[in-house]
Amino acid sequence: MEIAILVFDRMTALDAIGPYEVLARLPEARIRFVGKKRGLVTTDTGFLRLDAEAALDEVPRPDVLLVPGGFGTRRLMTDPDVLAWVKSAHETTQWTTSVCTGALVLGAAGLLRGLEATTYWAVLDMLAPLGAIPVRRRWVEQGKIVTAAGVSAGIDMALALAARIAGDEVAQRIQLGIEYDPHPPFSSGSVETASPAIVESMRAQLVAAAAAG
Amino acid sequence: MEIAILVFDRMTALDAIGPYEVLARLPEARIRFVGKKRGLVTTDTGFLRLDAEAALDEVPRPDVLLVPGGFGTRRLMTDPDVLAWVKSAHETTQWTTSVCTGALVLGAAGLLRGLEATTYWAVLDMLAPLGAIPVRRRWVEQGKIVTAAGVSAGIDMALALAARIAGDEVAQRIQLGIEYDPHPPFSSGSVETASPAIVESMRAQLVAAAAAG
Repeated sequence: MEIAILVFDRMTALDAIGPYEVLARLPEARIRFVGKKRGLVTTDTGFLRLDAEAALDEVPRPDVLLVPGGFGTRRLMTDPDVLAWVKSAHETTQWTTSVCTGALVLGAAGLLRGLEATTYWAVLDMLAPLGAIPVRRRWVEQGKIVTAAGVSAGIDMALALAARIAGDEVAQRIQLGIEYDPHPPFSSGSVETASPAIVESMRAQLVAAAAAG
Repeated sequence: MEIAILVFDRMTALDAIGPYEVLARLPEARIRFVGKKRGLVTTDTGFLRLDAEAALDEVPRPDVLLVPGGFGTRRLMTDPDVLAWVKSAHETTQWTTSVCTGALVLGAAGLLRGLEATTYWAVLDMLAPLGAIPVRRRWVEQGKIVTAAGVSAGIDMALALAARIAGDEVAQRIQLGIEYDPHPPFSSGSVETASPAIVESMRAQLVAAAAAG
């Protein structure tokens, strides 16, 4: 099973690496990190570089497609090469998936029209203009399209996907394999559970970051 | 604040990238991905390459040191250059940390003698021969040394560390920033909650993998 994970400058690393760590453990999985061209991409913090071992045209028909998020998705949303690849790959995938603002790239490629979808909490209102029906859930499955919420949600989504692909037992083995028994020290991980002050200050920070480009 | 994350061949990517995604969001953090030498390392699945932007001697006195795990730690445990760097960096760190089998490297460097520590569930019995007192917890803080359990535990540990470094409010903002509101589809992430059959088959798989080298 060929699993293509799109990588690009200003992506959020955990969006990709969370699902990668789950899906790489599926029997007979082969993960391809695919870039516009081969070579290193720099993540959104500027601190990390990941290697795209293949260019888009080298992986035309993956079985699973995963588009992670990050500020870099804004550029992808108007990149004709990336959108054409996503659209064309989707025609033959078994699963087409996104994490965080990766959903906006699926939307820009026209794949979410009329479908429920989710994305990063702070940009949920960007889904409707792309024809999707925004919902606040950890992940949303609609036919073969699965969209996950922000960043760390990709781990939960990938476990659910692993179960759909290989069965519950395999997914449960993978969960134990990555010792995924989360115990966050705070309950501040969603707008529903974080304090209003935290949500507001985070929103302000994101608006400032978006304005800074 | 300079945060050094050791990277090496056959490391487990999520061990490093989980904490990176948290710690990179600390105010004035600078993350350094440090390798034995500069250049690409290949993770344990063989599918992913990360760039070590600095060699050991370029980051001699990080404020925070993080050693991730993976099969590659077995080689590090007898690598005099790596052990000398870990030991020497630890003399001036504010925090010395590990995820998964990264604890075995701290132990091999002599840093865990007489201290409680944790590591990946399947190798917990490797801590005692290194002088540590093994405990089953998500993460364990002993003075300035913090060890985390397997793979995904690094995210929880890093949030706790972020709170110790910059206060609870900053840590809670970071948690919302990465939308870390975990909802795994199964409760199979620990030996205490997974079914005995899953635990046994996973143990057998790990023994086979270890024997294969």
